[in-house]
Amino acid sequence: MLQSELKLRRDKIRALMAQQGIDAALIACNVNLIYTYGSVVSGYLYLPLHEPARLFVKRPNNLAGEFVMPIRKPEQLPDLLKECGLPLPARLMLEGDELPFREYNRLAACFPDAEVLPDGTELIRRARSVKTEFELELLRRSGAAHARAYARIPSVYQLGMTDRQFSIEIERLMRLEGCLGIFRVFGRSMEIFMGSVLAGDNAAAPSPYDFALGGEGLDPSLPGGANGTLLQAGQSVMVDLGGNFFGYMCDMSRVYSLGRLPQQAYDAHQVCLEAQEAVAAMAKPGVACEDLYNKAIEVVTKAGFADRFMGVGQKAKFVGHGIGLEINEAPVLAPRIRQELEPGMVFALEPKIVLPEVGPVGIENSWAVKADGVEKLTQAPEEIVEL
Amino acid sequence: MLQSELKLRRDKIRALMAQQGIDAALIACNVNLIYTYGSVVSGYLYLPLHEPARLFVKRPNNLAGEFVMPIRKPEQLPDLLKECGLPLPARLMLEGDELPFREYNRLAACFPDAEVLPDGTELIRRARSVKTEFELELLRRSGAAHARAYARIPSVYQLGMTDRQFSIEIERLMRLEGCLGIFRVFGRSMEIFMGSVLAGDNAAAPSPYDFALGGEGLDPSLPGGANGTLLQAGQSVMVDLGGNFFGYMCDMSRVYSLGRLPQQAYDAHQVCLEAQEAVAAMAKPGVACEDLYNKAIEVVTKAGFADRFMGVGQKAKFVGHGIGLEINEAPVLAPRIRQELEPGMVFALEPKIVLPEVGPVGIENSWAVKADGVEKLTQAPEEIVEL
Repeated sequence: MLQSELKLRRDKIRALMAQQGIDAALIACNVNLIYTYGSVVSGYLYLPLHEPARLFVKRPNNLAGEFVMPIRKPEQLPDLLKECGLPLPARLMLEGDELPFREYNRLAACFPDAEVLPDGTELIRRARSVKTEFELELLRRSGAAHARAYARIPSVYQLGMTDRQFSIEIERLMRLEGCLGIFRVFGRSMEIFMGSVLAGDNAAAPSPYDFALGGEGLDPSLPGGANGTLLQAGQSVMVDLGGNFFGYMCDMSRVYSLGRLPQQAYDAHQVCLEAQEAVAAMAKPGVACEDLYNKAIEVVTKAGFADRFMGVGQKAKFVGHGIGLEINEAPVLAPRIRQELEPGMVFALEPKIVLPEVGPVGIENSWAVKADGVEKLTQAPEEIVEL
Repeated sequence: MLQSELKLRRDKIRALMAQQGIDAALIACNVNLIYTYGSVVSGYLYLPLHEPARLFVKRPNNLAGEFVMPIRKPEQLPDLLKECGLPLPARLMLEGDELPFREYNRLAACFPDAEVLPDGTELIRRARSVKTEFELELLRRSGAAHARAYARIPSVYQLGMTDRQFSIEIERLMRLEGCLGIFRVFGRSMEIFMGSVLAGDNAAAPSPYDFALGGEGLDPSLPGGANGTLLQAGQSVMVDLGGNFFGYMCDMSRVYSLGRLPQQAYDAHQVCLEAQEAVAAMAKPGVACEDLYNKAIEVVTKAGFADRFMGVGQKAKFVGHGIGLEINEAPVLAPRIRQELEPGMVFALEPKIVLPEVGPVGIENSWAVKADGVEKLTQAPEEIVEL
């Protein structure tokens, strides 16, 4: 990756560090290494406030460069910093919401004279929530590839398929378009394979995770998504895969039908499209996330679908979420989130309704916040497609 | 899952807790919840030494049972324990190598009068390293499904494919056999999609991860596995996918060739098979892991392939690893590991050699330790198959 791009990102983190009087960050977690170094390594990026960053790398063993040094264990860090002519940090931040407890303590113990703060996760996530132009371009390309894969979905459906078989063929389409497959989620507990394909009443199965819809899954060890439902006339199927292309994840959902659905399904789908339009028309820098959430609720409530919006029984308490290197970045479009949109933020907006005996309807697209509005990254027809 | 099976597993953990004077465990991480409760939930399994376990669950909201209670936040735990008639713990263990630093501290702060130990990860991993009969049966079925998928690999190869395209078709075969797709690894840093397909010189690319072989990968955000190499005559291709069926992961590698390979490749492959046979013949309860590693090194060194064994340039320092709910459990067949095999342990053994301008050769199978030897779980032909 271009050094100028990395410098831009590091300087965004540095600006937030300066506000909190932090003079260095030690970065060890994969997504933050991708963000600040451009690739995953086993090792540490040391980011001082006023000096160039240094990479201390365990693996791979073939990296070189002016600011790259090999390391075997973190206890070498103070000596290596001295070798670089860098002072030891006075206030050091670590990734306190990502590093495991024992690893955090081991790293902190390498700097006995420093005040060590666990704010690294939060602060780097804040920097990451506003994308650079280069990141926006990767997200645009990611959204376009995602849409190309979805355009081929009707071609892989075959009569008599289960949701599982349908999902497998769609996963393959995504991979053929360049999807890396791996689905990165912030937080230790939310696990999912490539996304979910939800048919009929399986869309109402509650999930252990805070995803928009759940699904029973195929095994209790991975309770989410397809559960082996036979695709049958009168059902809707929602395809909601995460598209990790180039490391950046767009999010996109489209709905398909087996034959013709009851009229209520088309009505409910239309309400979701209207909610999307209302939110998108309102979204621009300075608008608060909760106001966007409330706008979606207003549209859906007025149309009489509030009780089936974002799940039944167990409901998701958001209508959109930031995306980027992970599927759940800031901002979150949810109640009581006063955070305001900024140019460069990117989010998925996913108004969805679940209808008993039919299944899920609704829409999900990825959007970038521009100076005066939003740009749709996942361009594709939005009506229910009959398979 | 059967309550008797869960009781067996919980009692294995309790026996280790008792040895260390620990009177309760609070279990919050997915794999350990699968192990002790049978499925992933968002919440906590509280495991007292002398009382039945309690599940405190945030999501999903449809679980019920005598020992299941809803919870919103961990700060409710002391009151909920009192409601259950349970004393507060005196020495409590948490999953110190899995819980993020801040979450660990939040949970520990709920029990201000307890001595809180970070030993949960290590101790539960020790319990998990010796499988129950039920787990062995799941691993047997996982290995059989894995082998069925691999049997179809030659049928999906097409002339002019890249390693990436070949990988995508093999992933699909695995999914069609029931593979859940998700690849669980212990440790925060090791990320991989479903496994790796390594062709030609890409097998020599060093990895940030401690996997047997690396591969450049398709993007710096996921540096491992296929890199877009065109499959060409004279190359070998190693397929090494993790097989997560029913939550349990077997590991299996097989080698394919594009046309005929140089004789040296067949010789090296044969040496790996001999190393496998030598280790398997020796493996039984009471044998130390490092002795098994040394046996493999002995066979390979005698044959003159030591410098290309387990990678070139950057080498993996093991020849086998425990498997189960995660791909990297105990025991590890590596230097200086004095741990002895026990009946019920399950490991993957993967002697591999990388040949310049040809690619990787060797073998990987999954093995269960029996009373008097080992049982191969991934039965399939082991010779190099010409595509």
